[in-house]
Amino acid sequence: MKAARYYGPRDVRIEEVPEPELRAGAVAIDVAFCGICGSDLHEYLDGPIFVPPKGHPHPLSHEEAPVTLGHEFSGIVSAVGDGVTKVKPGDPVVVEPYFVCGECAQCRAGNYHLCDKMGFIGLSGGGGGLSSKVVVDERWVHPVGDIPLDQAALIEPLAVGHHAYVRSGAKAGDVALVGGAGPIGLLLAAVLKAEGVTVIMSELSEARKHKARETGVADYVIDPSQEDVAARVRELTGGVGADVAFECTSVNAVLDQLFDAVKPAGVIVNVSIWGHPATIDMQKLVLKEIDLRGTIAYVNDHPATIALVQEGRIDLAPFITARIPLDRLVEDGFDTLIHRNETAVKILVEEPAGVAALGKLS
Amino acid sequence: MKAARYYGPRDVRIEEVPEPELRAGAVAIDVAFCGICGSDLHEYLDGPIFVPPKGHPHPLSHEEAPVTLGHEFSGIVSAVGDGVTKVKPGDPVVVEPYFVCGECAQCRAGNYHLCDKMGFIGLSGGGGGLSSKVVVDERWVHPVGDIPLDQAALIEPLAVGHHAYVRSGAKAGDVALVGGAGPIGLLLAAVLKAEGVTVIMSELSEARKHKARETGVADYVIDPSQEDVAARVRELTGGVGADVAFECTSVNAVLDQLFDAVKPAGVIVNVSIWGHPATIDMQKLVLKEIDLRGTIAYVNDHPATIALVQEGRIDLAPFITARIPLDRLVEDGFDTLIHRNETAVKILVEEPAGVAALGKLS
Repeated sequence: MKAARYYGPRDVRIEEVPEPELRAGAVAIDVAFCGICGSDLHEYLDGPIFVPPKGHPHPLSHEEAPVTLGHEFSGIVSAVGDGVTKVKPGDPVVVEPYFVCGECAQCRAGNYHLCDKMGFIGLSGGGGGLSSKVVVDERWVHPVGDIPLDQAALIEPLAVGHHAYVRSGAKAGDVALVGGAGPIGLLLAAVLKAEGVTVIMSELSEARKHKARETGVADYVIDPSQEDVAARVRELTGGVGADVAFECTSVNAVLDQLFDAVKPAGVIVNVSIWGHPATIDMQKLVLKEIDLRGTIAYVNDHPATIALVQEGRIDLAPFITARIPLDRLVEDGFDTLIHRNETAVKILVEEPAGVAALGKLS
Repeated sequence: MKAARYYGPRDVRIEEVPEPELRAGAVAIDVAFCGICGSDLHEYLDGPIFVPPKGHPHPLSHEEAPVTLGHEFSGIVSAVGDGVTKVKPGDPVVVEPYFVCGECAQCRAGNYHLCDKMGFIGLSGGGGGLSSKVVVDERWVHPVGDIPLDQAALIEPLAVGHHAYVRSGAKAGDVALVGGAGPIGLLLAAVLKAEGVTVIMSELSEARKHKARETGVADYVIDPSQEDVAARVRELTGGVGADVAFECTSVNAVLDQLFDAVKPAGVIVNVSIWGHPATIDMQKLVLKEIDLRGTIAYVNDHPATIALVQEGRIDLAPFITARIPLDRLVEDGFDTLIHRNETAVKILVEEPAGVAALGKLS
């Protein structure tokens, strides 16, 4: 089968690889759609980061570069190994793409996403969604029922947003400020909105401001080049400030705005991946008793995330901005995200199984 | 009566002022002992900070410099105003030294310590403990029973430690790393220890390391110039890391060590006041899902703090390192803290009422 294989920075090749073999306790999946993630782009530009370099196999997958990419994918179960009871052939599913050890203190405490040896299927080995077939341990397979498979490929980044929402402690009736309307900022806003939180988004880019308005995920959109974000948030909250705020840009000026705009005893969740240290005004952290919380990926978030879409509380269709074949991954996928990042939210790579499944649905 | 009056930086005068008048709903207190706080020293060296400068009266006290200093004090009730039921003349008490508006969103939410107009008795007006008499609204007066009045003067900074402990979410059986064994670090450690938390302290100064050992508040004392703090903490915690960590130095290198030494999903509470921004490795915040929390002063902490001392779970006597008369405040108080800071934990100013009360007790 064809697969997108990561060899090193700016070296991703579409090549023939053997189909994965089914094993006991695992599920064989025909991939339908696979999204391109910011992490894939980071690997492409500046990697290897999560990809185990040649000579340094991942401790759980035992694989090293080249590895197959793709961790935001949906598909249809084609076969199940001995002992599998959660799904059966024909079931539409998504994958929570983890390798975890199950033995470290974090795994034992239920925080498997913070596992000492944690890796990602589609980055650290185990095949990936940028191929036509993948075999995954039953634990990580989640049925998606009647969610269209193209939208289901966005469950993974939506789960990232869901986990950030859980980390914030936001509840219905709260006001959230989301700094940055990139893919994760938008999907996080969709979760917040679905959970009854009022969403204020701060964003510079015209295309992204438009997307925030068009998708309906933002109640208010602020352009920090035109308005004082903190003053506007106070105006919108009766002088109090936002209950929670989310940093989705890795830009220090945005983080500073969140410190100003959040209320005393408020929570700031940092969702973005920073390539450099942040400078923080500790006096604000102290005198306002702010909680600054990190969030990474997801843990036990998939069932609730899938339910939000199944119940119609989130419509993922508007976030799909392009569909491309695997052969065009670098040219129409990575290069678009590098050069025309603002207009793209989620680019999906289509596999034949996905096209067929969508045809059946429509 | 004599009072220590703050006029401006390096200008604190011991001078005659009128005795405060009792009013309805308030309590007149003969001051026994008053501790010198790091905040007093900050005002003395770099103020005014909390002191309202001349021409800018505090919105609640309506006072401006010069004001009477002293917010860590104990005393004996000499008279009560109309309507006071909580205490009676002769009762030993301490004061939770706040001005709050009672009307802002934070006050209404119970977070009166984050009041929009918050001020401190003994800094923002209202008289202070560095005088022989003070009149305080009943709400802020807390009976201390049989706690010796010299030790009772340390209830206020101990409440700061108690609040930091509450903010951390630490529970019995947890392991805490406390960065810095100054007065607040030591008193915080005393609270943690009393609550069943294992305490590891990190400290450079020989005198402070000795104090941490001598008072028994630290189970382990690490010298970061001699040992890798994070490696030693991991060794002491079976490779996991500290459950919670407390920054009590405002030194960036110490904060960095806490990020390394705390376990994934751990909590870092910043207790210290920073005069400069901090640089933070956001990748650690994100990938370890660390919570970095600010803490300021106390809110509803006094009853539990007083109980810890009354029940004999904390002995405050070893933290009193000097007793001086009010006349010597600058020479033997501020100057000692400036020039021989390492040897002093808490310097108490004695008032005649305090000396008499201690005589009766012994």
